[in-house]
Amino acid sequence: MEEVAIVGVGNTKVGEWYDNSLRGLTDEAIAKTLQSANISPKEIDATFIGSMSPGLFNQQEHISALIGPHSGITAPALRVESACASGSSALRVAMMSIEAGYYDTALVIGVEKMTDLIDIGDVTTALGTASDGEWELGIGATFPALFALIMRAHMHKYGSTLEEYASVAVKNHKNGSLNPDAQFQKLISMETVMNSRIIAEPIRLFDCSPVSDGAAALIVTKKDLAKKYTDDPIYVKGTGAGIDHIAIHNRKDITTLESTKRATKEAFKRAKIKIKDIDFIEVHDCFTIAEVLALEDIGFCEKGKGGKFSLEGETALNSTISVNPSGGLKAKGHPVGATGIYQVIEVFKQLRNEAGKRQVTKNDIGVTHNIGGSGATSVVNVFSRGD
Amino acid sequence: MEEVAIVGVGNTKVGEWYDNSLRGLTDEAIAKTLQSANISPKEIDATFIGSMSPGLFNQQEHISALIGPHSGITAPALRVESACASGSSALRVAMMSIEAGYYDTALVIGVEKMTDLIDIGDVTTALGTASDGEWELGIGATFPALFALIMRAHMHKYGSTLEEYASVAVKNHKNGSLNPDAQFQKLISMETVMNSRIIAEPIRLFDCSPVSDGAAALIVTKKDLAKKYTDDPIYVKGTGAGIDHIAIHNRKDITTLESTKRATKEAFKRAKIKIKDIDFIEVHDCFTIAEVLALEDIGFCEKGKGGKFSLEGETALNSTISVNPSGGLKAKGHPVGATGIYQVIEVFKQLRNEAGKRQVTKNDIGVTHNIGGSGATSVVNVFSRGD
Repeated sequence: MEEVAIVGVGNTKVGEWYDNSLRGLTDEAIAKTLQSANISPKEIDATFIGSMSPGLFNQQEHISALIGPHSGITAPALRVESACASGSSALRVAMMSIEAGYYDTALVIGVEKMTDLIDIGDVTTALGTASDGEWELGIGATFPALFALIMRAHMHKYGSTLEEYASVAVKNHKNGSLNPDAQFQKLISMETVMNSRIIAEPIRLFDCSPVSDGAAALIVTKKDLAKKYTDDPIYVKGTGAGIDHIAIHNRKDITTLESTKRATKEAFKRAKIKIKDIDFIEVHDCFTIAEVLALEDIGFCEKGKGGKFSLEGETALNSTISVNPSGGLKAKGHPVGATGIYQVIEVFKQLRNEAGKRQVTKNDIGVTHNIGGSGATSVVNVFSRGD
Repeated sequence: MEEVAIVGVGNTKVGEWYDNSLRGLTDEAIAKTLQSANISPKEIDATFIGSMSPGLFNQQEHISALIGPHSGITAPALRVESACASGSSALRVAMMSIEAGYYDTALVIGVEKMTDLIDIGDVTTALGTASDGEWELGIGATFPALFALIMRAHMHKYGSTLEEYASVAVKNHKNGSLNPDAQFQKLISMETVMNSRIIAEPIRLFDCSPVSDGAAALIVTKKDLAKKYTDDPIYVKGTGAGIDHIAIHNRKDITTLESTKRATKEAFKRAKIKIKDIDFIEVHDCFTIAEVLALEDIGFCEKGKGGKFSLEGETALNSTISVNPSGGLKAKGHPVGATGIYQVIEVFKQLRNEAGKRQVTKNDIGVTHNIGGSGATSVVNVFSRGD
């Protein structure tokens, strides 16, 4: 059991916010978060910001100094980057700083403003820098292409089907339709997914998460200070991180995310839980194949059966295991460096029975699973209502 | 007193390495570091990488996953970014992770490969993203321009002179001439500095640190494990970080680095030292004015007298206080995100009497001072030979 609690959260709606900025989005998320925890800027001892590439998306590095002082927070700040797992990684660093006794209370922010780049090709290239620049992006292998290779290999090795993958998108859009902060709140059919245009065969448009803008934040504090800020703190039971080769050609088996297995093992060990203890989970479904891999590699079903598990409805809201009640990256949206914090916020709300129409009924333990790149980095965090 | 020790270091020579890559440079630094600490990749529990903008310089984010596994290190990894203070910030995070009990031993890397960008204008723009993109870089205020404003304000307010600034460059080149890893190892005269071409008046070419490539690494471990790796570990006595507004127009006084004062205060308090206890220091002289501000804001001399202090020789090797024995950013070079780790390596060598011709004679306590941007971020670390 870790020694920290989350006592307040805040975020912008995820979307394409052409009329807002990285600074404007974070201002909104910070203001909501401070209000949520009823805390003043002066009580923040440190700020940790997860963001994948403000340099490429917004021509702005050093956002640790941009964001805090702008909101009246003069505490030391730094940015943490692990591609799309930047948000979760920032939370891990914040936890370490508190558990090491450096700080009592930290603000953790995740932000990505992806629509400042006008050309979608530039966005794809910026995202591609999370792969191996020389051996993947440099030869034209964008992320849809990399996940297409993984998906095809999975179909070949395990016989997974296009229907199975489509079911992931349909389920996540259904959940997203119940989330007022989601980028997409419309139901879609299996036909919509399976007839959508091909991006990188066998991946179609509706297998992909969107380009998104968003900022999300939370306040993390020492366990024994938590009740000062809220009657209903959420505790981090365990955290785990894992790594693998950045380029998929260097991995033992491209249909398995070793980093997820490593992160899961560490997180479960620290949290002293088993897979069956988990009531719901937010997994990293940047593409439908990624959710299938997550189901298998975290351990909800047998290897190779993730798609079937999804198609049979075992991952729907309040079924066997509620997967991505928020709508996931697919429907809630995927502002890359912010995603890990959005996931924690969903778990925070679900555990506190504040998730409205998408509220899960079993909610003692919730988990987040956040990956970077094509899965070279994984972070898994376990949360609970009880201390 | 912090609970960690440094047991091995390694780095590339700083230079313009057109025929090498970010990956190649870090490979070299890691190999040297593992050898220095006589440690195997499997004994590394985590990797922390400081780098300012591999995205803009090399079209590569997610370098945490690129670098570790490539060298056989499968431990969790993440990148820390605080512009030019990224290296020192990565060390701080590594320390926190160890002191919180997550890991025993961590590899800390600083790297920047700046010469992959062919156009020097692109390099200047990439560096400029460490300033306020909308209110500084976006209106043409590059870093030489920002520091020129600070320098002129300092000259106006305190009567500091061009000779005083030039003396900083001359002294650092003298020290650099004794450092085989320095980018510039040539002596320069006051005339060379004062007659060099104007970059942003009153800053001339020889007031500026160069564009550099370099990678530097170190092994940090729990104090009680240190002797397993070396007979002569170096201890971190105290660490401090401070922040201020990213844009200089938002600061109370542009001639004072509040972030440095804050970082110094925290570091000295944690290390239980006073200014007079320091035997030598590596300060962040990205421009000569930056070394002058550091001397004043850390507290070696009265505010406004940093230039005079330098011109009178008080900062020369083995004088009142040896400042930048390595040659500093000016002569040793400034691979931005790696600089903080190069500073620690210099202190490590000086404290172990391994600094060759530039060895300082008093060497019980050494300090590093590393800033990000135009000084919005500062990190100050205090090191000692004794436990």
